Amino acid sequence: MNVTSDPRIERVAFNADGLVPAIIQQYDTAEVLMLGWMDAEALRRTLTEGRVTFWSRSRGEYWRKGDTSGHVQYVKGARLDCDGDALLIEVEQIGAACHTGEHTCFDADDLTPVAGEAR
Amino acid sequence: MNVTSDPRIERVAFNADGLVPAIIQQYDTAEVLMLGWMDAEALRRTLTEGRVTFWSRSRGEYWRKGDTSGHVQYVKGARLDCDGDALLIEVEQIGAACHTGEHTCFDADDLTPVAGEAR
Repeated sequence: MNVTSDPRIERVAFNADGLVPAIIQQYDTAEVLMLGWMDAEALRRTLTEGRVTFWSRSRGEYWRKGDTSGHVQYVKGARLDCDGDALLIEVEQIGAACHTGEHTCFDADDLTPVAGEAR
Repeated sequence: MNVTSDPRIERVAFNADGLVPAIIQQYDTAEVLMLGWMDAEALRRTLTEGRVTFWSRSRGEYWRKGDTSGHVQYVKGARLDCDGDALLIEVEQIGAACHTGEHTCFDADDLTPVAGEAR
């Protein structure tokens, strides 16, 4: 990691592994596409390059979404939550967001909860 | 934790602390409200009670959203992602989702990224 001082990144409360979860949302439909992880350098790249970069925990390397698949995520917005420990990144998704080919990573597995209702 | 066998919960890849991140989304507007954490028992309660329960990492206890604040989250849907390590919970949010009084936990801190664009 080689992150020059950036107050936006210094506000982030990274976890013990130096990572923060990033919710990726389609900017116009508000669909939640996936959840990925960023370290400070991945976040710096995401905030400055117009493209989303993650830290791949399984491969142990930076992963600029779409470089292999073509399924690029163009950055449209980025917000930090009230505790500083979660990101919401708005993107324009090209193609499928999920590596399985599904449109989102949440399409395939419905946990069929009991629904609640306001009384 | 006292979780009876439930194949939906057995599919979840909890982290080393026994937790999984849960993205909370307003079911009708698709707005992302917050990100919380659940252990197996919090997820079991969420899937069966019609109300969202988190594991509070700061307080080390179960936290059924709204019991103190009145800002209840009624469960409308629940999905597991392709890797089994993130949840998307659709809810009907009563009042503010954020403990600061903001509507969502992502309202206050805009990281003003450089935007990207498809060419």
